[in-house]
Amino acid sequence: MAGNTFGSVFKLTTFGESHGKGLGGIIEGCPAGIPVDMKAIQLDLDRRRPGQSAIVTQRKEADKVVFYSGIFEGKTTGTPIGFVIENTNQKSVDYSHIKDSYRPSHADYVYDQKYGFRDYRGGGRSSARETVCRVVAGSLAKQLLGTLKINAFVTQVGDIAINEPYESLDFNNTEANPVRCPHPQTAEKMESLIRKIRKEGDTIGGVVGCLIEDVPVGLGEPVFDKLHARLGAAMLSINAVKGFEFGSGFEGVRMKGSEHNDSFNPDGSTKTNYSGGIQGGISNGMNIYFRVAFKPVATLIQEYETIDKHGQKVVQQGKGRHDPCVVPRAVPIVEAMAALVLADFFLLNRLSKF
Amino acid sequence: MAGNTFGSVFKLTTFGESHGKGLGGIIEGCPAGIPVDMKAIQLDLDRRRPGQSAIVTQRKEADKVVFYSGIFEGKTTGTPIGFVIENTNQKSVDYSHIKDSYRPSHADYVYDQKYGFRDYRGGGRSSARETVCRVVAGSLAKQLLGTLKINAFVTQVGDIAINEPYESLDFNNTEANPVRCPHPQTAEKMESLIRKIRKEGDTIGGVVGCLIEDVPVGLGEPVFDKLHARLGAAMLSINAVKGFEFGSGFEGVRMKGSEHNDSFNPDGSTKTNYSGGIQGGISNGMNIYFRVAFKPVATLIQEYETIDKHGQKVVQQGKGRHDPCVVPRAVPIVEAMAALVLADFFLLNRLSKF
Amino acid sequence: MAGNTFGSVFKLTTFGESHGKGLGGIIEGCPAGIPVDMKAIQLDLDRRRPGQSAIVTQRKEADKVVFYSGIFEGKTTGTPIGFVIENTNQKSVDYSHIKDSYRPSHADYVYDQKYGFRDYRGGGRSSARETVCRVVAGSLAKQLLGTLKINAFVTQVGDIAINEPYESLDFNNTEANPVRCPHPQTAEKMESLIRKIRKEGDTIGGVVGCLIEDVPVGLGEPVFDKLHARLGAAMLSINAVKGFEFGSGFEGVRMKGSEHNDSFNPDGSTKTNYSGGIQGGISNGMNIYFRVAFKPVATLIQEYETIDKHGQKVVQQGKGRHDPCVVPRAVPIVEAMAALVLADFFLLNRLSKF
Amino acid sequence: MAGNTFGSVFKLTTFGESHGKGLGGIIEGCPAGIPVDMKAIQLDLDRRRPGQSAIVTQRKEADKVVFYSGIFEGKTTGTPIGFVIENTNQKSVDYSHIKDSYRPSHADYVYDQKYGFRDYRGGGRSSARETVCRVVAGSLAKQLLGTLKINAFVTQVGDIAINEPYESLDFNNTEANPVRCPHPQTAEKMESLIRKIRKEGDTIGGVVGCLIEDVPVGLGEPVFDKLHARLGAAMLSINAVKGFEFGSGFEGVRMKGSEHNDSFNPDGSTKTNYSGGIQGGISNGMNIYFRVAFKPVATLIQEYETIDKHGQKVVQQGKGRHDPCVVPRAVPIVEAMAALVLADFFLLNRLSKF
Repeated sequence: MAGNTFGSVFKLTTFGESHGKGLGGIIEGCPAGIPVDMKAIQLDLDRRRPGQSAIVTQRKEADKVVFYSGIFEGKTTGTPIGFVIENTNQKSVDYSHIKDSYRPSHADYVYDQKYGFRDYRGGGRSSARETVCRVVAGSLAKQLLGTLKINAFVTQVGDIAINEPYESLDFNNTEANPVRCPHPQTAEKMESLIRKIRKEGDTIGGVVGCLIEDVPVGLGEPVFDKLHARLGAAMLSINAVKGFEFGSGFEGVRMKGSEHNDSFNPDGSTKTNYSGGIQGGISNGMNIYFRVAFKPVATLIQEYETIDKHGQKVVQQGKGRHDPCVVPRAVPIVEAMAALVLADFFLLNRLSKF
Repeated sequence: MAGNTFGSVFKLTTFGESHGKGLGGIIEGCPAGIPVDMKAIQLDLDRRRPGQSAIVTQRKEADKVVFYSGIFEGKTTGTPIGFVIENTNQKSVDYSHIKDSYRPSHADYVYDQKYGFRDYRGGGRSSARETVCRVVAGSLAKQLLGTLKINAFVTQVGDIAINEPYESLDFNNTEANPVRCPHPQTAEKMESLIRKIRKEGDTIGGVVGCLIEDVPVGLGEPVFDKLHARLGAAMLSINAVKGFEFGSGFEGVRMKGSEHNDSFNPDGSTKTNYSGGIQGGISNGMNIYFRVAFKPVATLIQEYETIDKHGQKVVQQGKGRHDPCVVPRAVPIVEAMAALVLADFFLLNRLSKF
Repeated sequence: MAGNTFGSVFKLTTFGESHGKGLGGIIEGCPAGIPVDMKAIQLDLDRRRPGQSAIVTQRKEADKVVFYSGIFEGKTTGTPIGFVIENTNQKSVDYSHIKDSYRPSHADYVYDQKYGFRDYRGGGRSSARETVCRVVAGSLAKQLLGTLKINAFVTQVGDIAINEPYESLDFNNTEANPVRCPHPQTAEKMESLIRKIRKEGDTIGGVVGCLIEDVPVGLGEPVFDKLHARLGAAMLSINAVKGFEFGSGFEGVRMKGSEHNDSFNPDGSTKTNYSGGIQGGISNGMNIYFRVAFKPVATLIQEYETIDKHGQKVVQQGKGRHDPCVVPRAVPIVEAMAALVLADFFLLNRLSKF
Repeated sequence: MAGNTFGSVFKLTTFGESHGKGLGGIIEGCPAGIPVDMKAIQLDLDRRRPGQSAIVTQRKEADKVVFYSGIFEGKTTGTPIGFVIENTNQKSVDYSHIKDSYRPSHADYVYDQKYGFRDYRGGGRSSARETVCRVVAGSLAKQLLGTLKINAFVTQVGDIAINEPYESLDFNNTEANPVRCPHPQTAEKMESLIRKIRKEGDTIGGVVGCLIEDVPVGLGEPVFDKLHARLGAAMLSINAVKGFEFGSGFEGVRMKGSEHNDSFNPDGSTKTNYSGGIQGGISNGMNIYFRVAFKPVATLIQEYETIDKHGQKVVQQGKGRHDPCVVPRAVPIVEAMAALVLADFFLLNRLSKF
């Protein structure tokens, strides 16, 4: 399996399965001398943690990260930062019922085809539990990025969406409700919907928006590694993501160039921001804005029909713990991946000029 | 500038500016022994070529590719394939009027900020002319992929969209009109709109869809390099792209899991295909479907106000040759980038099992 | 710090300092389905372990490896293999005496210059303790390589060298003495020399040879990643290494081409092997032979003069535990690095032909 | 074929065969704003050029480099620098006699085995002609490195070696004789030997030494990418190289640590330099010194016996043009590869500290 590393100079490599001994990673390329705020890292982990509220999966994991290297007397040393998060609650469910069969819209079937067999205990490597490592690294990346501010938030659940422009939102409200929607009235409706869906043993999709403020000009490498191409790859690599758009996005295709072009102010800022803070693949100093679509997760607490590995029809009853809607827990993951992208480009940008 | 290489084992590295001596690239990792169909490569180049119809830019470029290495007696040798496309029409327009000023929503401003100065003749490296190299490599990648079929097509221009499901389209129609829309009636409307926009000196956005048929199971590396994450990165790296979605995409967020899950047939195929041919980041053998949003390009043949590098207001008159709508020429580029992603994963998949 | 990953498709990334919580790594790109012999891995670790005999450092480390992922029911799953080796004996020595001063020919000075400060407890990241991770991964790589046989052995300590051609050596003798020299009489002399040097609190250099048998034809990528270039890089990345030569090596420069050329037998094998099993950077199926020079390690148990970080002269007394000669413990490290190179090329070679 | 790229942030990717249309490369990651001295680049190419003196191959190649991109108004723009060197004299010799047979100690046999067939016109990709691209990129890298001085020189041909320490040599003499040996009396003897060998239609090996002066402290990434490991890989990737050593090298194994350790002066410099300017894989500011062994090249102008691809014995008569000894032309190649390594680490070092 290739592709377990993200980044080109600030790099995260991860390992781990949902029901193995634990997960972890190596952060490479972090410069020496950054004071590490351990509490901030644990706080981000807690925002992603299962069991944090009534509307997320009830799997019990402390998600305490243990650092093995690369930090000395409270600061990064420049050497690779190795870390581990033990799985503590991985044995509580019996997975023998899915050992020889394939859950619909999961990765069971393709893993068996690609690798010849699979670790059938839960999602294995394909489980979103893998993202716990991304949050550790992303949280450290935020600390490297300093005053730059990454605000991810839930903007849609099913058909319920915030109907105001993002400019009018107060992100201080995001963490005030379990949905992580900064618009309180909409948050309430979303929460009700998720509770209802949960009772049905069903799931529902959603959209996470992200506004990044105080971005320096010049981040992004403008051919294959355009800033938005890397942000898109980062987001699309998160489990259950089906789409990514930035700035004017899919709606922008309806516009004329004369409407869509962002005119300059004398200081280089622009009067509008259809570009979403990125021009030619490089940050232009305006706020970066993008949106990420998450499908309804495939794990249902319902009876369903599927096939076993011999192609025989089987009927299964979904059990265990699941997220009725992933977007509340996806918020810190989106932030983490955005931070990894930006930290990488922040360092790479030191190499642009002689 | 980093990020001029695409791919991990089947790799394309490109160079070149819109108004320099020429552009070119190196294709590395192409296995030995592939018979090369030179005409097919030139045909794909011709589909991307400026001046091919009345609704695209009239810049005159033959876009003839010259191969320097890696092909011997009609077959790939396994060694890197170097190629060059000379710029022949790069001197016909005077660019001095933009030397010291910044065109809105172009990369002029960010290049000056990032690199200290820029090649001000046209878009330089940020020009979509760079994509000519992608088409060369992508066309060769198609030949590596054999019977797999990549069908990109225009599905929307401005507000005019195909209103039928992609399953009902006949892709033999795609090349029958200059818009590259496989639905003839819609194609006509799109062409009229583009002609109208062109007369106004304005531009309009659009959407390119892509259906990939006969995909083997197992392509994609399921963590950071999920098949759709790489496809998304590939598409978002094309000039003017603002969004990417696959399978159920942004619409899928409104669905419940019980509706969205793709039930299996006994042979491992699925009854529905909301997954868009990809599960857990790995192709499942169903058709891959994705959509790419293109903004209206920024170059207008109109008078507009902007700033110079001292922040002074200047009035400019857009001139030169431009595309009123990029999506017709984007079709072969989308195909090329898809082919590069698939060829890379096709080879990587040889390493999955012992 | 870049450069903590070795390999292009079979990859090892490591973390860890000599006196931190532990060391570990991630092995990526190992194909699914390899039965893992855990005892063989621990055996290789034991061959590298401190305290294994009277002529090596007496630091007490169990060097037990714990695997976190990537192995299920005794076989590799294709997913990344994360592992950790805890440091258990890291606190027994007081390192405050070197906190502000620089030991000669150690990395103390350059780390402070490059990173601004350093983890001053022992060698930190520059300690050869880092190689424990290489042995874990290299031992697994051997299992991937199957019947191919890697025989590293001590061929010189100080002025005492084996005076027979390697073809006449019996590698079954290598592990029969603590020096790991397959020539028993020479081994005895080497051991006496090391004991003498040790009593003086001094150190001595040596040479490790390596013969690789049953190598398939075709390993190596023939421009920048020639097989011997990668082997050389691998060996030169081991602590204390000062030189690498293969085949005829430095002696070969004295020869004429008419003497040095290896004539073919009808089956493609060669009558002589001055090429050392590699032609044009690619294995030719003959035995691979190379030699690695190790300097005398810098840590002495003697009084010496040096400078502190203000450039002031200080007198220090070396203490702690040290290796009087590194080559006996280097043997499994040389093997591990050779295995990593070969496993990477073994997999890459699956991509050579259509 | 993998491995056509050298470097991690300052990168060279090359293409081209000895008898194809031409060779070339892409230099990526060169910062914007470096004034380019084109004459200096051509001068380095002329030092590597065939036909430059009576003791090298008489193949006639102008070796004029044409730059396609990345340089504008005399300065690097930060974008990738594409360049091409046309082959002009590639058709003058008939290679049909080697089409189906394998020259001893060439890459003919292994290419056929690895790739299924080969471009049999001369060495193809395995020819040392490929190094012309390295000289272009290395010469530009020197310009990035500024005042740092790289002095490669011939120190041994066959049994004739400079018998003085490198510290006493005057490198102004290196270019004063066709051998590129800075010791005039030794140079004369070497030249006589090469003329004699040439008349015999034979070849002879040699050693190139390299002294690098005015090196900043801190270059090198201290685990797998130690400065000397990358230098070693760089040198071992040059055609015909059989060994690499730095500092005390293979001789240093005979020394005791108490002799070998380099004591500090108050300013951080060292009294001796057995370390060869590198400690812990990082430059320490002292001169870097290394030596590279080149075998006698395999092409002889003699009759010899070999096999064809069916394993049948054939007798051949070497013809064409060849180098009786490669080291005079290897000098600029060694310098180029050293410059590529140093430029890469020079840029990477900007990322070490916060």
